[in-house]
Amino acid sequence: MPLLMMESNMGGKMIMRIDLSNENLMLHETLYFTGNGYIGIRANFEEGYPSDYDSIRGSYINGYYESYPITYGESAVGFPKVGEKMVNLMDGQGIRIKIGGDQFSMFDGQINAFDRGLDIEKGYAYRIIDWTSPSGHRMKIEFRRLTSFVVKEVAVISVIFTSINYDGVVEVLSSVEGEVTNYASEDDPRVADDHGMLMDIQQNEILGGTVIFKASTKRSNIEVGLCALHEPRMHQMMVGGHRSEGITDFNITKGESKRVDKYLVFTDSIRHTDVTNDGLAILSKVVDQGARDLYDQQSLYLEEFWSRSKVEILGNQAVEEAVNYSVYQLLASAGTSKQSQISAKGLSGEGYEGHYFWDTEIYMIPFFTLTNPELAKNLLSYRYDTLDAAKARAREMGHALGAKIPWRTISGIESSAYFPAGSAQYHINADVAYAMIQYYIVTKDLSFMIQKAFEVIYETARIWLDMGHFDEEGRFRIHSVTGPDEYTAIVNNNYYTNAMAQYHMKWAMKLLNTISDYDFEAFKTLESKIGIKAREMDMLLRAADKMYLPFDKKKRISVQDDGFMEKKPWDFESEDEKKRPLLLHFHPLTIYRHQVLKQADTVLAHFLLDNEDDEIMKRSYHFYEKLTTHDSSLSPCVYSMMAARIGEGQKAYDYFMKTVRLDLDNLHHNTKDGLHIANAGGAYMGIVYGFAGLRITEDGIVIRPLLPKKWQSITFSYFYQGIKVKVTVGKKIKIVTSGPISLCVYNRWYEVDGERTVTYNESN
Amino acid sequence: MPLLMMESNMGGKMIMRIDLSNENLMLHETLYFTGNGYIGIRANFEEGYPSDYDSIRGSYINGYYESYPITYGESAVGFPKVGEKMVNLMDGQGIRIKIGGDQFSMFDGQINAFDRGLDIEKGYAYRIIDWTSPSGHRMKIEFRRLTSFVVKEVAVISVIFTSINYDGVVEVLSSVEGEVTNYASEDDPRVADDHGMLMDIQQNEILGGTVIFKASTKRSNIEVGLCALHEPRMHQMMVGGHRSEGITDFNITKGESKRVDKYLVFTDSIRHTDVTNDGLAILSKVVDQGARDLYDQQSLYLEEFWSRSKVEILGNQAVEEAVNYSVYQLLASAGTSKQSQISAKGLSGEGYEGHYFWDTEIYMIPFFTLTNPELAKNLLSYRYDTLDAAKARAREMGHALGAKIPWRTISGIESSAYFPAGSAQYHINADVAYAMIQYYIVTKDLSFMIQKAFEVIYETARIWLDMGHFDEEGRFRIHSVTGPDEYTAIVNNNYYTNAMAQYHMKWAMKLLNTISDYDFEAFKTLESKIGIKAREMDMLLRAADKMYLPFDKKKRISVQDDGFMEKKPWDFESEDEKKRPLLLHFHPLTIYRHQVLKQADTVLAHFLLDNEDDEIMKRSYHFYEKLTTHDSSLSPCVYSMMAARIGEGQKAYDYFMKTVRLDLDNLHHNTKDGLHIANAGGAYMGIVYGFAGLRITEDGIVIRPLLPKKWQSITFSYFYQGIKVKVTVGKKIKIVTSGPISLCVYNRWYEVDGERTVTYNESN
Repeated sequence: MPLLMMESNMGGKMIMRIDLSNENLMLHETLYFTGNGYIGIRANFEEGYPSDYDSIRGSYINGYYESYPITYGESAVGFPKVGEKMVNLMDGQGIRIKIGGDQFSMFDGQINAFDRGLDIEKGYAYRIIDWTSPSGHRMKIEFRRLTSFVVKEVAVISVIFTSINYDGVVEVLSSVEGEVTNYASEDDPRVADDHGMLMDIQQNEILGGTVIFKASTKRSNIEVGLCALHEPRMHQMMVGGHRSEGITDFNITKGESKRVDKYLVFTDSIRHTDVTNDGLAILSKVVDQGARDLYDQQSLYLEEFWSRSKVEILGNQAVEEAVNYSVYQLLASAGTSKQSQISAKGLSGEGYEGHYFWDTEIYMIPFFTLTNPELAKNLLSYRYDTLDAAKARAREMGHALGAKIPWRTISGIESSAYFPAGSAQYHINADVAYAMIQYYIVTKDLSFMIQKAFEVIYETARIWLDMGHFDEEGRFRIHSVTGPDEYTAIVNNNYYTNAMAQYHMKWAMKLLNTISDYDFEAFKTLESKIGIKAREMDMLLRAADKMYLPFDKKKRISVQDDGFMEKKPWDFESEDEKKRPLLLHFHPLTIYRHQVLKQADTVLAHFLLDNEDDEIMKRSYHFYEKLTTHDSSLSPCVYSMMAARIGEGQKAYDYFMKTVRLDLDNLHHNTKDGLHIANAGGAYMGIVYGFAGLRITEDGIVIRPLLPKKWQSITFSYFYQGIKVKVTVGKKIKIVTSGPISLCVYNRWYEVDGERTVTYNESN
Repeated sequence: MPLLMMESNMGGKMIMRIDLSNENLMLHETLYFTGNGYIGIRANFEEGYPSDYDSIRGSYINGYYESYPITYGESAVGFPKVGEKMVNLMDGQGIRIKIGGDQFSMFDGQINAFDRGLDIEKGYAYRIIDWTSPSGHRMKIEFRRLTSFVVKEVAVISVIFTSINYDGVVEVLSSVEGEVTNYASEDDPRVADDHGMLMDIQQNEILGGTVIFKASTKRSNIEVGLCALHEPRMHQMMVGGHRSEGITDFNITKGESKRVDKYLVFTDSIRHTDVTNDGLAILSKVVDQGARDLYDQQSLYLEEFWSRSKVEILGNQAVEEAVNYSVYQLLASAGTSKQSQISAKGLSGEGYEGHYFWDTEIYMIPFFTLTNPELAKNLLSYRYDTLDAAKARAREMGHALGAKIPWRTISGIESSAYFPAGSAQYHINADVAYAMIQYYIVTKDLSFMIQKAFEVIYETARIWLDMGHFDEEGRFRIHSVTGPDEYTAIVNNNYYTNAMAQYHMKWAMKLLNTISDYDFEAFKTLESKIGIKAREMDMLLRAADKMYLPFDKKKRISVQDDGFMEKKPWDFESEDEKKRPLLLHFHPLTIYRHQVLKQADTVLAHFLLDNEDDEIMKRSYHFYEKLTTHDSSLSPCVYSMMAARIGEGQKAYDYFMKTVRLDLDNLHHNTKDGLHIANAGGAYMGIVYGFAGLRITEDGIVIRPLLPKKWQSITFSYFYQGIKVKVTVGKKIKIVTSGPISLCVYNRWYEVDGERTVTYNESN
């Protein structure tokens, strides 16, 4: 019987049984974190934990980082010398409460009832405790926290006291603590192993009741400000060392309710000219506005968001809730300011050091592209904003021209210290371009292409000419790269890389022609800025045209890379299934020499490109499926979507269930380090790209539904070139649009303008 | 016009013009170092240098190391956590001299004549300066240093004063300095980049005129002792901080000579039970014996050594001297005590941190195997002594059985922090076995096989069964390894690796049968100790039999690895030739994806195994030669020897000249970090294996001479199964033996017992 039972509904409640084990508290710190794309605050208990508890007490700003020197036992040319990591900020969460002299603690007195959750409709997290203190005073205490989607710098923690049997004084001690460190793990390569404070406190004072903190990272020299104010104001305020505290007290009588709101405003010097003054100005405004109004504003914001983004599933309430939880976390993670994107764990934890990887483009942005193209555009702009760093990286890697997208980064520099599974993943160049191209197809936003995207697409495309070469048979080959499957490294002609590079180069030329046709002046400007030459254009077309895609003639499948078919089989039968993920149990060379996959690779290319005939994709799927451990959270969703694509409903459903519950059920045992945001994107895609079978093609949107048998219908919306399209897939398909569109269901195109119901046949 | 002119003859004199540039002094610190296989002392000026000079002032003990933690930007399972480095010991070199109040310095006063050299016949280094002090006192000062081949712990520095125009007091201040650090370089990956003292001084006192130093490494906790005494005794002795000093003075008159001998005894706790007491006992003995006797003893030792080892070349004196210089350095580097072997730089510098690599077995031991089999046996025993560590390493790398020889090590643990060019070089297992097998063939020393070697050979052989697998066509394949050519990494079916593994497995079984035939009890003991099973024996035979050796049918050449022929060509024409070695200018991935070699790989296999027909070896040679940069010092000698093998005399000569002069002419610009001892081995082999064409085969010794046109003859000796064979190859071949042997010249076998002259034809 599981200790934890989680229930949720679109009303947003997730209710848990009382489980105060350390392990689960760390998990819940992640699951109930509050974020708005700019700031993220983990759901730590305001009042703290027993001293033997381990907690990742964290507040973060998206794109706020510290630099650190990377050391190598043996270094080589082009190994990055400096890495970056997201910084744990000053902790504004601290609130301690005394009731009749009894210190409130979840681990003391008696908990009569306990309710904790994240309201994804209203946009706040809450914790409600009906508590009897050791002296017998009974009080209901509700904590609520919000990070505002409207004013991104703002977080509010509200505490609402309702006395049940107590008349007397309640004392509230609220703190801001500047002595913070990042979380460290010595054993897990996926968590950083550094200790120590990353920031110097530069200002810590109280002015007119306002706590003013300013700190700066020691090496990257980026300032962060935290201004805090309480309503009602605190009676006593103290500054000491790295800490500021305030105390207030008030009388309460049975049945009465009292409330304290703690306003926190985070600012940073990348996005603010003066962190303190900007912070104070924002604070003053939101305090005038009042906490209640901020909560209302949050609801309104989300109402609009859900009208675009909500996924409805008739027939499985739990899945609907889990998918929408994922959708909410995508929003909560998405940077909307300059130099920020979506990191692997969003703002929910420190796993992967807050780095941005390829999964943003391949797994997360698709949701935004379909439902919130403006947000998608912001996210895609990040690679344009950091293009200079990518060009500099290309030079470090020996390329005279072009840009090399870093494998993991915050500011745009390469932060990967293990190139076989880092810089060797050249496919990220194509992945970034792919997301931009998909955005273009859906939006036809040519001005974004001209202003930003094309330059990124072209600069990243020209690298392929230097990476690859034509062999004696005239085929274009790309050697010594690593594909998405990191259980095979530094290989030749990785199918995924080659196929994506082909798409990339083709589209670079296609977009160039389109821009030239529609805006010749813009074309000339770009041509001159980028230094595009006729010979290079020819080469890009020829390389795309002659791209070598490994194929096994006997098995009639696409081949992961040149040596893959001849590898030693992994002994799945004798192997201890507990030794997962393999990367935590085996030396890389042991993994590399065996025929075993961490995650979808060739199958992912088939999913993204839909470029082979159905039978090849089907056989390839079955071949690779047997060899895949799914040690990466990026894998099951792809196997789910491709199962749907090849008509295997049960498999699609089974893999989907592993995706949609991955964090909620802590399937990878590391959700404490943060949510798997790419997997959250995968959960959304599992519905829309998987069961509804949506694909973005040059001709328009195609769907090929294959619903799980027990589900009555799924409903979702998307925007196609500005027109909203709401699709309900059940036995039939109902389409409601805000204007005229074409939509293909299986192989047949329908014109819709308003509402239309069409029938379909899965075997078509 | 070169500043430095070096001359040498078998009398051992190398005379240089006066060149006191910093760069050349660092080079000469290496070239004139004194070593005896146990201790090595760089040829630093006793009196020191100007303060702006950079010097690598170093004394070392073979196999004496400190441990240090290896850090990784991103770590993974099986990455070594601890590395080792050779420690720079307490400095006993310091001797300062005052003549009439003038401090002797090469950079002050006037140098009337200067002679410096290494006498390889007598076994000491010397520096003779005819100096006029600033006040006009003229004195000849001769420094001599010896590290005894007979009593390995002992070094002596003698200073001989001969007054030319001075009557008065000479003051000598002699010191032992404990505050020493290893040399550090931040930029060059081939030199360690660590700073700081590696040892704690535990004892520093003077007892009865004897300086007694004891120190211990901070982490590995290995003690080192240094006891020093002067003859004549010092007048005043002082201990202060990390330093001990003694002062003596004496009167000298014109024409008179005086002498001071400084005795230094180094001991360490790996090889001595009590470093201080053992050191004092040895010191007392050698002081009684007297310095002159130590010099005489050294001459006698070397007389015996040269009688076995000398190479004579009629027609090129300079080459003869350079080859014998190399031969001497092999001796000076060769460990003869437990847990020591030959490091990449011997004891002449700190490059590669004093680590032992595969080159000991492949490039250095062949000289000993042929000329000094007892020393060879000692060197080969090292892998037996450290077999437990190699077995533990195999487990770390995921092998349930067997031993994995570390790529670089001192104590036997893996110290390589970059596995693509470290642990991935599984060929080292076969290299070690190869050297043992060659030793066996030459000596027929079955008892060494039974006692030590066979266990190493078998434990290292069984790894291949886990590394490789049989493919659908029944061929045995080995994936994800790196061959000797580190410009290509983590490849499949590296020709060198596969061919050497084949030889390795065949011989493991052959030796097993031999032992079983000759000593069944020993066989049973080994079978049980190693856990040899019939099934494994079958598999070893089958894997060897079915080994896949890549071959290009069109070009009819052996292929370096599965993907090699399809790689992108390196643009040798446009490339700046100054960008060498490539590894200091290009990211590994840039190098890996191109068809370019650092060093002989397939060609080395052809050299060692002589396993393909002549035409295939010839074509392969020409194919790979064009692609090889020779960025490794291990390369030109192999290209020289194989050129001789395929009948291309001019090429053989040209590559040989690059080998034989590599350190003397500082061709790699890094001889300051130490001699390239493998290259020294290569210089010897260039004569014996190259121009004489010697090969050790199961049937006996084969020679296929191909002399450089301008040489009249080469003479060398070897021992075959205890019989001394002296061979002079000129127009004819003169063979002198101490007993009956068979010798094959080209394809014809000759019986010799005593003396015989045979004719030969190169085109045979």
